[in-house]
Parts: sequence; structure tokens; C-alpha cells
Amino acid sequence: MRRACHLSRSLIRASRSLPEEALGAASALLPDAGHVLSVAEARCREDRQQQHSEYASVSQPHLAVTQGWNLLHRNQPVDPFSLVKEEIESVSERLRRSIFTGIPTLRSAAEYFFKMGAEGKRLRPTMLLLMASSLSAYVPSPDFLTVDDRPPNEHPSEERRRQQRIAEITEMIHVASLLHDDVIDNAEVRRGLRALNSVFGNKIAILAGDFLLARASVSLAALRNSDVIQLLSQVIEDLVTGEILQISSTDEDLLSLDYYVRKTFHKTASLMANSAKAVAILGGQSVEVSELAWQYGRHLGLAFQFVDDVLDFTGSTLQLGKPALNDLHSGLATAPVLFAVEEHPQLRAMILRKFKSEGDVELAQQLVFDSNGIQRARDLAAEHASLAAQAVQSMPPAVTEHAMLCRQALTDIAARVLTRKK
Amino acid sequence: MRRACHLSRSLIRASRSLPEEALGAASALLPDAGHVLSVAEARCREDRQQQHSEYASVSQPHLAVTQGWNLLHRNQPVDPFSLVKEEIESVSERLRRSIFTGIPTLRSAAEYFFKMGAEGKRLRPTMLLLMASSLSAYVPSPDFLTVDDRPPNEHPSEERRRQQRIAEITEMIHVASLLHDDVIDNAEVRRGLRALNSVFGNKIAILAGDFLLARASVSLAALRNSDVIQLLSQVIEDLVTGEILQISSTDEDLLSLDYYVRKTFHKTASLMANSAKAVAILGGQSVEVSELAWQYGRHLGLAFQFVDDVLDFTGSTLQLGKPALNDLHSGLATAPVLFAVEEHPQLRAMILRKFKSEGDVELAQQLVFDSNGIQRARDLAAEHASLAAQAVQSMPPAVTEHAMLCRQALTDIAARVLTRKK
Repeated sequence: MRRACHLSRSLIRASRSLPEEALGAASALLPDAGHVLSVAEARCREDRQQQHSEYASVSQPHLAVTQGWNLLHRNQPVDPFSLVKEEIESVSERLRRSIFTGIPTLRSAAEYFFKMGAEGKRLRPTMLLLMASSLSAYVPSPDFLTVDDRPPNEHPSEERRRQQRIAEITEMIHVASLLHDDVIDNAEVRRGLRALNSVFGNKIAILAGDFLLARASVSLAALRNSDVIQLLSQVIEDLVTGEILQISSTDEDLLSLDYYVRKTFHKTASLMANSAKAVAILGGQSVEVSELAWQYGRHLGLAFQFVDDVLDFTGSTLQLGKPALNDLHSGLATAPVLFAVEEHPQLRAMILRKFKSEGDVELAQQLVFDSNGIQRARDLAAEHASLAAQAVQSMPPAVTEHAMLCRQALTDIAARVLTRKK
Repeated sequence: MRRACHLSRSLIRASRSLPEEALGAASALLPDAGHVLSVAEARCREDRQQQHSEYASVSQPHLAVTQGWNLLHRNQPVDPFSLVKEEIESVSERLRRSIFTGIPTLRSAAEYFFKMGAEGKRLRPTMLLLMASSLSAYVPSPDFLTVDDRPPNEHPSEERRRQQRIAEITEMIHVASLLHDDVIDNAEVRRGLRALNSVFGNKIAILAGDFLLARASVSLAALRNSDVIQLLSQVIEDLVTGEILQISSTDEDLLSLDYYVRKTFHKTASLMANSAKAVAILGGQSVEVSELAWQYGRHLGLAFQFVDDVLDFTGSTLQLGKPALNDLHSGLATAPVLFAVEEHPQLRAMILRKFKSEGDVELAQQLVFDSNGIQRARDLAAEHASLAAQAVQSMPPAVTEHAMLCRQALTDIAARVLTRKK
């Protein structure tokens, strides 16, 4: 609850840091916004003892702020995903075209997770295009909503096109790492589909991952910006380091939350952090602002993963698109378990033997539910979501109303990550 | 023999295209060089019927030319590898340091093929440093023979250091592709050592490959040259394409020499071609000269692979550092088999079933030996070695004697590739 209130407060601060004239206009249209925020603060205090309910209290004031903006701009609730939906469709289509290869097997494999309906949440490209707009002095021209049909190795000179390429490259790197991880973990299901390795075999899955990395490198090179190339190359290294940290940990590492957070940064947050920074750099932002974009991506990535850890316990296979309790079955002790072990020391031996003894998974699940592990993992996620929101708030004032709206959407994404169900 | 004579003639032409004053100096010191060349041409004609002996006749005039230069410069035979030996040692040492990582498992795996004694022939870095020198107006300063200790992501501004980085990056990409190929092919032996996958397991081998690719990308980005970044990124894609072409061929593909040559370009020659071009670009060369460097690398790579195919039939396990008849056992029909099938149509069925029936490997081996397959594969290799030499000869006149010596060494490497035993 403490963390959730922290987040609420930071969202409230966000609304307070808005330019006075915008706030005035919002108040005129939505005179109760300030009241809703105060009520939310009070509710936060009241709710301190109430477990498992913070997400509602977080989202209420937040929605109020969002709706204030919506009333100001559109008279309907803002969905951060809908704000860039059309552009995301065009980036997705370009992505499908840019991984074209004349070799049928490779094409089928590479396309597998980019086909319509199999693209996942597209959180990363959405976040990146919102970041681009939130730092821009212009509303993107409709020209940039069409599919950019130039080949991957052709240099795009237009700022927005370059930023779209980062969204595309980021998805390619992300999917490449999923493909290799799934081979390594012998995964059978991903995004509600059979994992690529279980359809095409390990060989093709390894090569399709390599191909996506290679195509990403070619696209990246075409941007001709060394800092950006270096940031995204570092991501690939971080993804590998994260996976290695996961599979080669000592007993001490397995029980360490710090080690777990470090691994999570490498496996999940580095891609979001570095790609967000790349978008800021391509938008001509200063070192300081680019660093705030990095911080936003980092905290969003960490929040995202800690919620993922919780969902592995609380979600169903159908909801998740992958087996529930997948982490325990794979031998992984994630945040909820690492918190729970403080209350139930008998988890220690199970963590070290990677839940491989008969009945381990069920007992570990029970002990986690019979502890504050889930709650503390949620708190940790909420803390990072709040820090993500703070990074956006620390940016210099937005230049256009559209940019303000996009910043609000970035804050909203951080809150939505907490309440997601899959 | 025809191809071998072709090569001899092209080597002879090489000596004729030397600047007059250099040739004059060489003749003064080695009055018999012209005679040796004529004798070699005559011997070529005499030897047309003699099988399996063309390498001696190739290397004679070649050695004579080389020795002419040696007498001119050092009074001892030039070994192309010794010409850049010290610098190669320093590049190798830098490579070992630059793949350092704080994660012990990853470090052991990544270092595995870069440890002293396990580095292989280092053909690629040797060729690249010779290419760099052969196009330079300067003999590299001794300062550049020390190990460049800057981290991979630090930008080197000195031309020679940048070219050394290409040698380093090329080796990283090469070894990364070996690691993934060995997982895909379930290889057990490589460079006379156990294959990495059989020591550390497939997971670590996949990740070590990814790590090397990532570190290569970071180093590449630090060069801050978009054309060069693009060339080497293309190589990674070509390596994947080559492997996919190998494992996903149709019946028609399996029997097609064209398909085989295309696959070989992707798997072997692209890396040599693009890295040689990258060195030329970093050396400030024109598009035309950079293209000649690319051609040299391409033909050298093709020659190298066709000889590799022959050695798989004629070499012993001990000589090769990997099992003899490895290709047949892996189900691969290489150049000698694809030529032999024209004389022995019963090979066709064996190729299509990938030599998987009892006795296939032995019978295929016998049929290949009982055909002109080996010879024609050697001829094909010799043709490409000759084209590699021609690319060097087509370059504008070398500016220094050292550059001339390095060009000679490049030609010499092309000839040595034909006579190598492992």
C-alpha cells in the first residue's frame, strides 16, 4: 500500500507540475479533478491495511488526471495504446516487410511472432513512439503514418522515420531474444501459440533469432548514429548477460534479491531503457533528457517484470498465453519467492534445488501465497512504476499539448503495467 | 591442371605488372626469376595429364617471385603469416581482453577458441592486416604493434587501430558462427578440441555465440563508420542465410552446384569479402579499390572452402582437427560429390537421402575417388585462387615496397590455401 500511495502521490505531483494555463483550462472543464485527487490521497491513507486492492486506488486519481486531459482534448478517455495505434500498425507492417527473406523456411520462422494477432502487447513500440512524441515540438505529420517501404539498409533522414526504426529494431531484438531463450528453456508455449522451437525445431529457432539480430543490426547501421548503434548493441550484450546470469547462478546468487534485480535489468529493462534513450537522442534531446528517457525505460522494464513474476502465481494459463507457475516449473525463484523465503525459511532448500523434488512446486506456491511475497513484489513493481512516472515529470516542460498528452500516456502505461492481467 | 596453369599464368602476370624499377632491382638480385617463370609455364603444359600434382607447379613460380622479393628485402623466404605475426599476436591478445566479462561461465565459453594454441590458423586477421598494409602509403609504426588496451566501446581514431579492430571483429563473428553451427550440427570436435557445445552444453554455446556477436556489434559501433558497420552486419545475416540454405534445401537444391556455391559464398566467403572491403574503406580507398578488396576476399573464401571440401576426403582426422569424411557423415554433398555425380548417377539417390543408409558414406567416398570429383573441386578452388590474385594485381600500383611485399603475400596466401593440409 505504501508504494501504491507513493505512486498516487507522484501521479498527483504530475498533475501539479502541469503548466498553469493548462491546469486552469482543465479545472474549468473538470472542476472536480483536484477533489478527486484529494479523495484519492485520503483513500490511500485509509487503505493502508487493505491488501491486494492498491491498483484500483492507484488508477482512480490517475484516470481522473487522464480524463481531465481527455475532456480538454477529446472528451473521451485516453488509451495510451490508441494514441499511437495507427502508427504502430504501420511500424508493424513495415517490420513484417523488412524481415522478408527469399528463403521460405527462414521467412516462416522469422515472421512467426510478427504475424497479425501474434505480435503480443507491442508495449515497447508503443512506449517508444509516445516517448518520441512527448519530446517533440511537432505533432507527427500524417505522412509518417503510412508504411515506410524503404529497405532496411537504406538511410532514413526524417527524424520520425528514424524513431520508428528504433521501435522496429527493438521489437526484432526482443523477439530474437525470446526465440533463443525458448530454445534454452525448452519452452513449449509463447504468446498463446506453440513456441517457435517446438514448431520448427531448435536449429531453425536459433537461426531465426540470429537472422532477426542480423537484420536489426543492418537497420541500426542505416541510422548512421554511432551513439544509437552503441546503445542498441549494448542491449544485445545485456540480454545475453541476463540469460547467463539466470542459468549460471551460485547458491548465494539464487537466494539474492539484488542478483535477481540485476538479472532482470539485463533481461528486460535494458532494452526498454536503451531504446527509449535512442529515441530521445534521435529527437535531438540533451544528454540530461536522454538520460531521463533511459530512466523511464529502466523503471518501466523492472516494474513490468516484477508484475510478470506475480502474474505467474496469480494468472491462469489461458490469461497468460503461457503456462501458469512457469517460473517455478522452470526452476526460477522470482521476486515473490525471494520475499517469501524471509517468512518461510523452508523455501531456501527448494530454491537451491530449483523446485525439482516431487511436490516442490505446489508447496512453494502455497508458501508464497501464505506470505507477503506477492504483495511485496507488487510493492516493488509499484515503486518502479512511480520512479518511471517521476522520470517523465522531471523532463523540461512539454512544448505542445500533444506532447503533454503523450507524457500523460507514458505515466498511464506505468500504471497500466501494474494492473495488467497478462 | 588447366586451372592450375591459369593460376600460374596469373601469378606470372603479377610479377610482370610490378613497377619496372622494382622488377629491375629484383632481376639484378635474382637474374633467374624470369627463367624460372618460363620453365614453370612449360612445366604446366607438360603436366596437363598428371593428376594431383598441380600444387607443386603452382607454387614453384610463385615461390620464385616471392623469393625475388625476399632477396630484395630480407634474403629469406617470405611467409605471409610471419609478415604480420607480431601484429597478429597483439590483435589476438586484445581480442582475448576485449571479450572479458565478469560472468565466469560466459568468460570461459567465450574465451574457449581464443586461448593460445586454440586460435586456429588466423587466416582472416592475417589476410586483413596484409590487405591494410598493401593499400597503405606507410609501413605501420611499431606503436601499433603493442596491444590496444582501450575498451571495445571506445572509439579508436588511428587508421591502423581501426583496421585492427576489423580483424578482431571478424574473428569474433567467425567464432560466433562456428559455435552456433556446432550446436546445430551436434558437432563434437573443432580445431582438434572438443566442440564448445560438447563441453559446456548447447545453452552456453548458443549464449556464448550471441555474446560474441553482441561484443562484435559494440566494437563495430565504436568505429563510427556507417558503411563499415553495414558491411559487417550484412555478414552476420549472410552467415545465417548460408546455414539456413544448408539445412533447408530441396532435392533440386541438394544436387545443384550453383546452389552449393551460393551457400558457400554466404557461409564462408561473405565474411572475408566484406571484412576486406571494410579494411580498404577504413584505409580511405576509393569505391573501385574497396571493391577489388571485396573480390579478393570473396574468391579467397570460395577457394578456401572448396579445398576444405577436398580435404574432408583426403585428410586424416588428426591432420584436420575434426573428423575426416565429416561432411558425408553430416549428410552434406560438397563440391567433389556434386562433380562426381555426373560420372556416377547412383550418387544422386545417396545425396538426396543425405548418406543415411547403411554403407552410403563408404560407397560415396569410393565413387568420389573413382571419379574426377576431387580434381574438379581442386580446379574450381584454383580458379578462385587465381581470381583472388587477379583482384590484387588489378589494384593501382603499390606506393611503398612494404605494400608491394604485402600484396605478394596476399597472392601467396591464395596459393597456400590450395596446398594447405588442414
